[in-house]
Amino acid sequence: MLLLRIEKLRKILQEKNLDGFLVSNFYNVLYLSGFKTLTENEREGWLLITTKKYYLFSDSRYLSFPRRRESRKLDPSIKSEDDVFVEKLITTEKGLIKHLQEIVVEEKIKNLGVEGDDLKLNEFNKLKQELKSVEIVPTEKLIIKQREIKDKFEIEKIRKACQIADKCLEDVVKTIKIGSSEKEIAFKIEFWLKEKNYDLAFYPIIAIDENSSVPHYNTRSGNNKKVKNGSVILIDFGAKYQDYCSDITRMIFVGKPNNEVLNIYQKLLSAQQKTIKQFSNETICKNLDSFCRQQLTNSYSYPHSTGHGVGLQVHEYPKISQTSIDTLQQNQIFTIEPGVYNEGKWGMRIEDTILVKENKQIDVLTKFGKQPLII
Amino acid sequence: MLLLRIEKLRKILQEKNLDGFLVSNFYNVLYLSGFKTLTENEREGWLLITTKKYYLFSDSRYLSFPRRRESRKLDPSIKSEDDVFVEKLITTEKGLIKHLQEIVVEEKIKNLGVEGDDLKLNEFNKLKQELKSVEIVPTEKLIIKQREIKDKFEIEKIRKACQIADKCLEDVVKTIKIGSSEKEIAFKIEFWLKEKNYDLAFYPIIAIDENSSVPHYNTRSGNNKKVKNGSVILIDFGAKYQDYCSDITRMIFVGKPNNEVLNIYQKLLSAQQKTIKQFSNETICKNLDSFCRQQLTNSYSYPHSTGHGVGLQVHEYPKISQTSIDTLQQNQIFTIEPGVYNEGKWGMRIEDTILVKENKQIDVLTKFGKQPLII
Repeated sequence: MLLLRIEKLRKILQEKNLDGFLVSNFYNVLYLSGFKTLTENEREGWLLITTKKYYLFSDSRYLSFPRRRESRKLDPSIKSEDDVFVEKLITTEKGLIKHLQEIVVEEKIKNLGVEGDDLKLNEFNKLKQELKSVEIVPTEKLIIKQREIKDKFEIEKIRKACQIADKCLEDVVKTIKIGSSEKEIAFKIEFWLKEKNYDLAFYPIIAIDENSSVPHYNTRSGNNKKVKNGSVILIDFGAKYQDYCSDITRMIFVGKPNNEVLNIYQKLLSAQQKTIKQFSNETICKNLDSFCRQQLTNSYSYPHSTGHGVGLQVHEYPKISQTSIDTLQQNQIFTIEPGVYNEGKWGMRIEDTILVKENKQIDVLTKFGKQPLII
Repeated sequence: MLLLRIEKLRKILQEKNLDGFLVSNFYNVLYLSGFKTLTENEREGWLLITTKKYYLFSDSRYLSFPRRRESRKLDPSIKSEDDVFVEKLITTEKGLIKHLQEIVVEEKIKNLGVEGDDLKLNEFNKLKQELKSVEIVPTEKLIIKQREIKDKFEIEKIRKACQIADKCLEDVVKTIKIGSSEKEIAFKIEFWLKEKNYDLAFYPIIAIDENSSVPHYNTRSGNNKKVKNGSVILIDFGAKYQDYCSDITRMIFVGKPNNEVLNIYQKLLSAQQKTIKQFSNETICKNLDSFCRQQLTNSYSYPHSTGHGVGLQVHEYPKISQTSIDTLQQNQIFTIEPGVYNEGKWGMRIEDTILVKENKQIDVLTKFGKQPLII
């Protein structure tokens, strides 16, 4: 599977006349090699793809005895790669640059692509300075656009992440009662997942009453409102399963909601469902956003996009937004999440994670019910 | 407090002949403005410091009704800043670049500093292209080096984060018994912190027996060993309190440890304590690392540095390492964490978070006992 991903990337590199490509981004390294470092931002792992080989660079904490290749073992196809896969140890004496200097000579690399949307300016300048014989070529969104189309391996993981989120929500909703606070509900979701050795895709947004009218309310730093009779509760969260995310939003009503809120909820639900059906008639993501938006904006504000890709990260391509240039394609997985926000009073959003299958068939991967959930 | 930090930065900018400075790094934005976005990496907030004003750029999710300035209210000194603090709303129509284009004209900015170690290459190229009248000047480590010296406000938060870690460890150690697994212990630490509305400084490293011989074992993806009679347990974790980290490592022995292990533990403890005492005779961080290292490397491997600064991030300046160019200064907070690793058998590390006070006095902020803890 990893080799297929690398081969796919190599075709793009060939078109761009690049005989090497240095991957710096944590998620892109993980995607192409299965190698995952402890931190996302401390540059603990790098990957170099050349025409024939690929090299993983890391330090002795990773490339040593018990942990050696531990993460790569996850993928059984890895065995066949041993002849083209090389591990290079980064030490105090021999850093990334020295390794690269040797490899560009050995492999006669003239044009080395880098991730311009990930590489820091100073890192780029250092590469340019230390690899004088090589043209360093900035690229943009090369791998993240490749990641837009999910392979079977990824689809099954995201499907499972969605099932986990459904089950988590089912269990946690049962525990919500008058007096439950936003942070308590977020905490229950986090611990439901973590005690089963899953993870959060992102910190849950739990927003009660007027807090729900803030489209991306921050539960962690917010005022921790409590559930009361008549409350509107917005729950937006995702599970992570073997590094892959899901994303779902549901509304919970405590006691009978007033008719205005209920009517708008039904309108919102109808807009969401129609938008999902519209996949079969549409290939332009921007139009999908407009299609959804025009059903809603007469009444209340809707200040965010209609959806986003989901994968190793919770925000990927395609973007379903007013400025998107993406198109609908088979094996994309993305959210559809229209919302209506009545400033200072309440907000509602309904979100599913959806797979585009062949012939524009769709599979809504998050299956938790969307009829008004009144507790 | 924030204004003092900004004034300190302005002095450095003046020396560098910069009449504006664009802050992109999540932690640096937080440090200088108190403003914290939901994600670290999605560029949701930017800060521009000019000679007279400072501007915060973000979108309507942050710069709108209930959340407006919510995070800035934490600091009571903020009120006096209203005349020099400007919020600029980023919208689809008016992005960061358009705001900057206006401000550089208004404020006659000729030399605009950027964070070269944070700004992405493509972001830099875009700034250069769109702000043609301005010289864009890459800098390195400007704010992170300023953050090396903690102010009172920060010291008190880190002190509290250390107290929280001590208490957490005390409670969690009591629950460890034969059969407890690495992930269970990590989970208990996380749970203990989060149910009290604190956070993890990083995912805990819980390493039992041979796993402890991997200097930075990854508990999350590891083989989840269980405690047995005679086990050596390494616990390395930190608490986060109001965005500030602590960092502590302790060893737990289950049943009576064998004499070899116990002797080496005592040697390690002595090396750690002597190193801490050595602060009063030393001003060069690199020498402190050597001082510690030479007491240990005769016996077993010690493949990491002796310490690192702790603050908003768990790895900051100064570095106490063989290649460090840092010096010991008042109001630094950093760890001293020597380790000994017997490949495939066991590893031990003892780590404290330490404040350097005036006249080279020190305050060990993590106070959990270091005599061999046998359970």
